[in-house]
Amino acid sequence: MSDHIYKKIELVGTSQTSIEEAVKNAVAKAAESVRNIRWVEIQETRCHVENQKIVYWQVTVKIGFTLDEE
Amino acid sequence: MSDHIYKKIELVGTSQTSIEEAVKNAVAKAAESVRNIRWVEIQETRCHVENQKIVYWQVTVKIGFTLDEE
Amino acid sequence: MSDHIYKKIELVGTSQTSIEEAVKNAVAKAAESVRNIRWVEIQETRCHVENQKIVYWQVTVKIGFTLDEE
Amino acid sequence: MSDHIYKKIELVGTSQTSIEEAVKNAVAKAAESVRNIRWVEIQETRCHVENQKIVYWQVTVKIGFTLDEE
Amino acid sequence: MSDHIYKKIELVGTSQTSIEEAVKNAVAKAAESVRNIRWVEIQETRCHVENQKIVYWQVTVKIGFTLDEE
Amino acid sequence: MSDHIYKKIELVGTSQTSIEEAVKNAVAKAAESVRNIRWVEIQETRCHVENQKIVYWQVTVKIGFTLDEE
Amino acid sequence: MSDHIYKKIELVGTSQTSIEEAVKNAVAKAAESVRNIRWVEIQETRCHVENQKIVYWQVTVKIGFTLDEE
Amino acid sequence: MSDHIYKKIELVGTSQTSIEEAVKNAVAKAAESVRNIRWVEIQETRCHVENQKIVYWQVTVKIGFTLDEE
Amino acid sequence: MSDHIYKKIELVGTSQTSIEEAVKNAVAKAAESVRNIRWVEIQETRCHVENQKIVYWQVTVKIGFTLDEE
Amino acid sequence: MSDHIYKKIELVGTSQTSIEEAVKNAVAKAAESVRNIRWVEIQETRCHVENQKIVYWQVTVKIGFTLDEE
Amino acid sequence: MSDHIYKKIELVGTSQTSIEEAVKNAVAKAAESVRNIRWVEIQETRCHVENQKIVYWQVTVKIGFTLDEE
Amino acid sequence: MSDHIYKKIELVGTSQTSIEEAVKNAVAKAAESVRNIRWVEIQETRCHVENQKIVYWQVTVKIGFTLDEE
Repeated sequence: MSDHIYKKIELVGTSQTSIEEAVKNAVAKAAESVRNIRWVEIQETRCHVENQKIVYWQVTVKIGFTLDEE
Repeated sequence: MSDHIYKKIELVGTSQTSIEEAVKNAVAKAAESVRNIRWVEIQETRCHVENQKIVYWQVTVKIGFTLDEE
Repeated sequence: MSDHIYKKIELVGTSQTSIEEAVKNAVAKAAESVRNIRWVEIQETRCHVENQKIVYWQVTVKIGFTLDEE
Repeated sequence: MSDHIYKKIELVGTSQTSIEEAVKNAVAKAAESVRNIRWVEIQETRCHVENQKIVYWQVTVKIGFTLDEE
Repeated sequence: MSDHIYKKIELVGTSQTSIEEAVKNAVAKAAESVRNIRWVEIQETRCHVENQKIVYWQVTVKIGFTLDEE
Repeated sequence: MSDHIYKKIELVGTSQTSIEEAVKNAVAKAAESVRNIRWVEIQETRCHVENQKIVYWQVTVKIGFTLDEE
Repeated sequence: MSDHIYKKIELVGTSQTSIEEAVKNAVAKAAESVRNIRWVEIQETRCHVENQKIVYWQVTVKIGFTLDEE
Repeated sequence: MSDHIYKKIELVGTSQTSIEEAVKNAVAKAAESVRNIRWVEIQETRCHVENQKIVYWQVTVKIGFTLDEE
Repeated sequence: MSDHIYKKIELVGTSQTSIEEAVKNAVAKAAESVRNIRWVEIQETRCHVENQKIVYWQVTVKIGFTLDEE
Repeated sequence: MSDHIYKKIELVGTSQTSIEEAVKNAVAKAAESVRNIRWVEIQETRCHVENQKIVYWQVTVKIGFTLDEE
Repeated sequence: MSDHIYKKIELVGTSQTSIEEAVKNAVAKAAESVRNIRWVEIQETRCHVENQKIVYWQVTVKIGFTLDEE
Repeated sequence: MSDHIYKKIELVGTSQTSIEEAVKNAVAKAAESVRNIRWVEIQETRCHVENQKIVYWQVTVKIGFTLDEE
């Protein structure tokens, strides 16, 4: 009935294995402090390199969640 | 006298009637938790459609407010 | 169960009265030829001017709809 | 017959009521000093907020007009 | 000999497992109605979240194909 | 009297001689299947190179046409 | 010796023959009212179409000139 | 060992003297409420002008910090 | 009481010493011909190099001023 | 102690299996000619399609490395 | 069989006659030092002006070439 | 007489003191290996933070130089 309001926060998830895993890690971390996550927007993907190998995938995401019941 | 610092938060306001109403709803929600809102930047406008009609205007906004006295 | 696929088409709706009306006109036109419209993304807003007055609001939109049953 | 040349100027129109009104105000102001306005491109929309309410819609526009007869 | 013409269409592929799978699903759907697909440009990646978990990867793609023999 | 609706499609025209020729080829191809083309927006220009020489100009364009009588 | 200041103005040049000609027409028009033009930045290229043919190339340019002696 | 998660917040620092000072002021303010700041991304620089003089440099920054131990 | 209208002009200020000085020079120049400057938006920063040293900082700015009383 | 300088080069890595593999291939190639790679920024992802199937993932990356000891 | 790797370099070609000629000049220069050029992406077009006339077309291009056999 | 060709390379300069110093450091480093540097384009500014203080300004620049005599 009432109009919803959503908030977006910006996190950087990291993973040693894949882009998808880095995004999942960011969502899992966000889920510890916000309820009702609804969507993720991938903003940017970078890698950290050591010894000439990729050691971390770093994915910047915006995470949207419903603000109504906060 | 002292230099001010502002913070921006990103919300998505929604409305069944207009873009302006969606923005106002976002500001009203923000006003519940932050004081001293100073400006709004409209980022993106989308609509949710059902039964071939627009049912919600969804407007992503950045809301800027003074941080000094928090 | 199955993964959905959506298609986006790009239209320019026009109206003599408002941005919202121009978007609605674009959706109404799209609804004549595609089923299951789900969302609209507003891309760009321009006006056509004659005799120093705005005579048309021209709003470029992307309209997303489900492709599955086509 | 001859090729036209257009110029664009950038204004910020404001209004206490709506985005459309802010754009119209910018066009009306431009019409005081340039003739033959042909189109408007909306660039950016912001709001000025006081006492936790939106008091002004501020819309940055580019206004295009024919330069030939100036 | 003759110059080729290509067309691009914009789809959103989805998958419960990965970004790559979502793109493949979009291409498979496009292949039902257009021939001679030549390339894909990934535009945007989002996720749909339910119960604090990612349930769909949603990847917007532009799909380019040869128009000559249509 | 009534408000017009336009559609945009995205093509890539190619030519061995010039950017302008590539755009014209795209318009000519579009004219085979859509009526009432009104404008073209040039999006991107690339070249295909073989034996260290440019052999094709590839120009991505959006072509706008009136949808009313479709 | 002294630091220079430049101003940029934004024009749209048109031509029935080529992009280059449209830019030259814009520069020629600007040269009627400003002195000391130094550079041009091409911003956007569009075409006006009638009877399914390109009739005008429309090129938006920013024209930079020295302000010192104005 | 474990994958890190970072959060970015967006502030506007101001200074009467320089861009660098405005950024430092934003970081100092952020340091009052978040620990483990790691990097700053400068987004946008504006100035506030009064009596035809620049009175404030206003620099929008994104500030990234480690979320793990919050 | 009445709604304000602002105009933006685009200048390039230069300085042999710093980015801030280049911006100030642009504002000082603008102040010779427009009244009521209100804000500056920094658009782009470049340097001119001679003999392998930076000799000029060149900063493109948009300068906003109140149009009402012109 | 001393300030570091980094250089970025732009490569396109390809892979028949995944986006991550394409990025790794680009890094491996870069590692043949530059030392001290520090990070990767993913710029653009495209696919090459043959027989209506994706045959190559093509990922444009910027690779950053320390220049000091070259 | 093996996955290819490409490198992009960024040049600015110039010409007194046309945009196309400026691009060709950049490709010819690149061909002196790199083999296996495959494509060109046009990034930006500017003109140098003297005595109120365009004297050079300056076109920034990215040139892509195969790295495998280097 | 002949048309010039320029090349751009992308570096990240760093400094503990200012943005300008970081740019100068990048130019000084480039000057060790390329001759005839002509201009710098500032792309992005970031800071590295330790112990809640900015310890490095990191400025990404494109450096343009004449290729003719290489």
